[in-house]
Amino acid sequence: MGVTQDEEFSLDAVRREGLLPTPGTGQAQHDGTGRVELSFTVETGADDGGAPPAQRSVRVPPGVTVFDSASWNGIAIDSTCGGHGTCHKCKVRVEGPTPITRHDVKTFSREQLDNGWRLACLVQATRDLAVDVPPLTTRPKAATVGVGRQVILRPAVQKRYVELDEPTLADQRPDVDRLLAAIDDLEPAPDLHALRRLPKVLREADFKVTAVVVDEVLVDVEPGDTTDQRYAIAYDLGTTTVVATLLDLTLGTPIAVASVLNKQQPFGGDVITRISATMLDPEALPRLQRAAADTLAELASQVCGEGGVDPRQVYEVAIAGNATMTALVLGMDPEPLGVAPFVLATAQPPALLAAEVGLDLHPRAHVYFFPALGAYVGGDIVAGMLATGMDRDKRTRLMIDVGTNCEIVLSDGDRIVSTAAPAGPAFEGGAIRCGMRAADGAIETIRLDTPEGVVDLGVIGDVEPKGLCGSGLVDAVAELVKVGLLDGTGRFVPDEQAVDIAPKLADRLTKLGEERVFVLHRPWPDAGPEDCVVLSQRDVRELQFAKAAISTGWSLLLEELGLEARDVQQVLMAGSFGSYISPASAVRIGLVPKLPVLRIVSAGNVAGEGAKMALLSVRERAGAAALLEEVTYVELSDRADFNDRFVDQLGF
Amino acid sequence: MGVTQDEEFSLDAVRREGLLPTPGTGQAQHDGTGRVELSFTVETGADDGGAPPAQRSVRVPPGVTVFDSASWNGIAIDSTCGGHGTCHKCKVRVEGPTPITRHDVKTFSREQLDNGWRLACLVQATRDLAVDVPPLTTRPKAATVGVGRQVILRPAVQKRYVELDEPTLADQRPDVDRLLAAIDDLEPAPDLHALRRLPKVLREADFKVTAVVVDEVLVDVEPGDTTDQRYAIAYDLGTTTVVATLLDLTLGTPIAVASVLNKQQPFGGDVITRISATMLDPEALPRLQRAAADTLAELASQVCGEGGVDPRQVYEVAIAGNATMTALVLGMDPEPLGVAPFVLATAQPPALLAAEVGLDLHPRAHVYFFPALGAYVGGDIVAGMLATGMDRDKRTRLMIDVGTNCEIVLSDGDRIVSTAAPAGPAFEGGAIRCGMRAADGAIETIRLDTPEGVVDLGVIGDVEPKGLCGSGLVDAVAELVKVGLLDGTGRFVPDEQAVDIAPKLADRLTKLGEERVFVLHRPWPDAGPEDCVVLSQRDVRELQFAKAAISTGWSLLLEELGLEARDVQQVLMAGSFGSYISPASAVRIGLVPKLPVLRIVSAGNVAGEGAKMALLSVRERAGAAALLEEVTYVELSDRADFNDRFVDQLGF
Repeated sequence: MGVTQDEEFSLDAVRREGLLPTPGTGQAQHDGTGRVELSFTVETGADDGGAPPAQRSVRVPPGVTVFDSASWNGIAIDSTCGGHGTCHKCKVRVEGPTPITRHDVKTFSREQLDNGWRLACLVQATRDLAVDVPPLTTRPKAATVGVGRQVILRPAVQKRYVELDEPTLADQRPDVDRLLAAIDDLEPAPDLHALRRLPKVLREADFKVTAVVVDEVLVDVEPGDTTDQRYAIAYDLGTTTVVATLLDLTLGTPIAVASVLNKQQPFGGDVITRISATMLDPEALPRLQRAAADTLAELASQVCGEGGVDPRQVYEVAIAGNATMTALVLGMDPEPLGVAPFVLATAQPPALLAAEVGLDLHPRAHVYFFPALGAYVGGDIVAGMLATGMDRDKRTRLMIDVGTNCEIVLSDGDRIVSTAAPAGPAFEGGAIRCGMRAADGAIETIRLDTPEGVVDLGVIGDVEPKGLCGSGLVDAVAELVKVGLLDGTGRFVPDEQAVDIAPKLADRLTKLGEERVFVLHRPWPDAGPEDCVVLSQRDVRELQFAKAAISTGWSLLLEELGLEARDVQQVLMAGSFGSYISPASAVRIGLVPKLPVLRIVSAGNVAGEGAKMALLSVRERAGAAALLEEVTYVELSDRADFNDRFVDQLGF
Repeated sequence: MGVTQDEEFSLDAVRREGLLPTPGTGQAQHDGTGRVELSFTVETGADDGGAPPAQRSVRVPPGVTVFDSASWNGIAIDSTCGGHGTCHKCKVRVEGPTPITRHDVKTFSREQLDNGWRLACLVQATRDLAVDVPPLTTRPKAATVGVGRQVILRPAVQKRYVELDEPTLADQRPDVDRLLAAIDDLEPAPDLHALRRLPKVLREADFKVTAVVVDEVLVDVEPGDTTDQRYAIAYDLGTTTVVATLLDLTLGTPIAVASVLNKQQPFGGDVITRISATMLDPEALPRLQRAAADTLAELASQVCGEGGVDPRQVYEVAIAGNATMTALVLGMDPEPLGVAPFVLATAQPPALLAAEVGLDLHPRAHVYFFPALGAYVGGDIVAGMLATGMDRDKRTRLMIDVGTNCEIVLSDGDRIVSTAAPAGPAFEGGAIRCGMRAADGAIETIRLDTPEGVVDLGVIGDVEPKGLCGSGLVDAVAELVKVGLLDGTGRFVPDEQAVDIAPKLADRLTKLGEERVFVLHRPWPDAGPEDCVVLSQRDVRELQFAKAAISTGWSLLLEELGLEARDVQQVLMAGSFGSYISPASAVRIGLVPKLPVLRIVSAGNVAGEGAKMALLSVRERAGAAALLEEVTYVELSDRADFNDRFVDQLGF
């Protein structure tokens, strides 16, 4: 019945906007499992000189709107209202039967509706879809990013085209005074680069120039009118994966997205091993810094190439990373982050030039870093709070960014508390027998059918399963608990009991060496367990430890605000691991509070979305700074009762 | 009778301070000619570990006080009052009979007075003097620099020693928050360099560190207490000569001074030829920039070496240069400065790192550049206004900085006007037959005695005369006008008339080729005029053009403020050429208004003094910025009547 991705939220919207669901057109509610694929065909506009449409396929958890699925993957769709169905701009054509909302009826003709035209923000992806995206038609004043956040465009990068009177003996004002006097609404301080170029550019361009201002600094002056060419790159600088989005700051739209493994991987998979590397070898810090710079640079060149944008017209970069990633890219010693009492050198890294982090963009392009709340609630989480509106939304909401270090934020609409839980590497495939990253061949969804004995596996790339990624691990454990092959303490039940409970699955329960395992995939009929993709008893324990750390974290935060689990109106599963965990399984194993599955929402790459917001609006950036004051950080390792509570949370 | 260097000024001081000259102790008034030598013996203090006293000789125009002579040459003498005889701190021992002022009587015992102890600010150097300077005893709150300017010490470079509580799990404040919370009176923004060093330095130094703040930026943190080690370098970046003074910012005193020829010399002797070089050859600008950087760097290493100061403890640099020198050291295209309508790129160069102008000091040392009023009234002149107190003094004063481009500033104590006069290269020895720089062998003073036929030459280095520097040229013309061998139009009188007027000098008037010349020095008895140091008719013409340009300049400024020449209470002859021109000769040839010679004061290297002031006090720096608003620039080349007036001023 919901018209947007979340039940409560859409009901709110319905009440607020006076919407009512159109009877008979309600979409089938998803059950919080599986994955859907959206195939976008992006039409090119008249400006593109007849270039062919671009094709892009993306996989998202069911329930995400078509608009968000596109936006998170760098596909621009017109919109100005923030996905509330009010601007009627996000028109797309969807193949196959798709529910029609009241807003669709207002927006489209009968014929258009028959042809599949819908508002993208009102279509929930509950099955695989093919979507046609028309070229952008408007120059918006706002963009929709993050989880339904509408951002009024006010980038730190501003351009002003001016036509100046030439100097005379009677008017010998310095060039920069002449230029700035012609700009009413900005008073930038000129930097040396701009001053060096100014005299020649002014005179060669007959005093018709474009001033380029970044964050109140005049960084350049360009001949003629270049106001339309204004770009920036948003980075989600993850420990494992780094994602870059090239943004058109004039339109507020993404142009290209690319992701790559962090080149620091050889130094270790998680932040602690990388910090250790710097403690053991004085050469490691500069090499880690170089590796981070190379990662950012490779992505910059990739998105500029794909977007057909001159890197010299990229004037700003925003980086959302955890505290260790931020320290390493800045060449700052991360050691105090890795040892108690876990202290940051600074909450807010200073403003820098992109060149200082190894980026070859505009020579005076600036870098904005998100501030950090603590050594383990870093800039990525502050960016995520921005993207999910944790500081603005009046509902009681819980955000969980699942990873080796799991960050948890709880807001009751007034106060915000956060903490970091040491979940360990289970979700990233570490310490799991058949664990792997979410790459081709990884089992990402699992459904067990007891009567039929069917094991239904969703595999990335639709290839032969090779291993188990984080969401697959959670599904495996949750399904085995559901069918009863794992008991409440997390032990595989004895063989005889297994045969009773699930006769057609019981033969998959076997031994590998001394350890009991459950065979998820057998590559050939009589393959031994060592050749199979299995879930081992120890894997279950690893996941138990991880989920216990996380649920201890959020239960302490609930207590901090005097709330019960049932008070939580929305749980946002964030980050590259969290976004892909099946809500049903997360509820079943107790990774999140026991709530209706529709309250559990995949929030996507919130760090990257926050970085985009910071580039699109200086006000959002001010919001990030304000979060440092608003959010109370709760240190788990300082609590005497942590271990007791942890043990309480171990069972399913 | 004067107790300070200038009659009016001292009388003012006498009235203001209730001083009366002690009868019978008045110093012989100098007549505005010649040069005196001061030999300083600087005693070392207990801190210097028994090092031997340092010896320094300096030559100054007569009438400059011992205090100023020392200060301008980097010799520190205690003082806090600004040379008004009130602090009684600037104690020195002078050899030979020296007048005793009422203040000396208050300060010293009978025995001390008999032993030659005097207050250095009250001793005018009217003869060669040997002066003993005791070691510094006080940590002053103020320093005396420039022309009797007292500067309350408030450098942009500040250090604070703090002892911090170590972080705990209950107090996880970021390192920089912890540090800054411990500093009450400053709120600096940390730069990346400081943040990179902070965690390690804090922990290695047991959280006992010194914060280094430059211009409200935290640039470093040093282990332990280094508050006493705080240095800066003041540069006078001249077209010909560059002077550097290393300052101890804690004491406000100079430690070492060095000067060197600007390494840009090969590109041309004056600003116009250097600008032309950049217009003809695109490689010239980077090479000129490099040459300027090398010049500054060589001086930095020289003064740090002499002063025994680690260059990494030099945290700031101030540069006073004309607009072209400033543009070239910044790598900014100077072309618009060289062609009408003569436009600056910017009045105020941006704040930079010293490393960006090629200096290897503290890696985050800052550079302060003086702002410019116009293309030909640059930062050097703004510095000079600061050093001479043009913005504060209530008297009507004229400052003339003589050079190829001659800058002129007039204040009536309320309004300030300035202009630039194209004097040409005469004062720098250019276009003068026997012209040379003020180096060994240059005739710098000349006195002619008609009855005896004596030509009394003062020669730099007391060696065989090799040529004529600017002050010698002015003296030569002035003396020849005085004795009548040059007539009022600037022509040598006919031979028969010369014999009548000055029989014993007439034979020096001869011909070199077709041109009449006056022989100043004949190296051997029958040397031909081509082997002699001579003043030619064309040389006289060059000087006439130069002085006409200058006097046109100041006469227009007088008119601008509705003043007569006689209203001027003080003429400050500034800069490396102006300071050495004999006041009497300057009056005689009309380079300055016809005023009593004691109103003509040698102001010394005012640009360098201004640079020192900017380093010693951020308030003085604000004063420099204020001058941009206060001073009205009068463009001579824009005036229709310039040529008429110029012709009027040609005669003597």
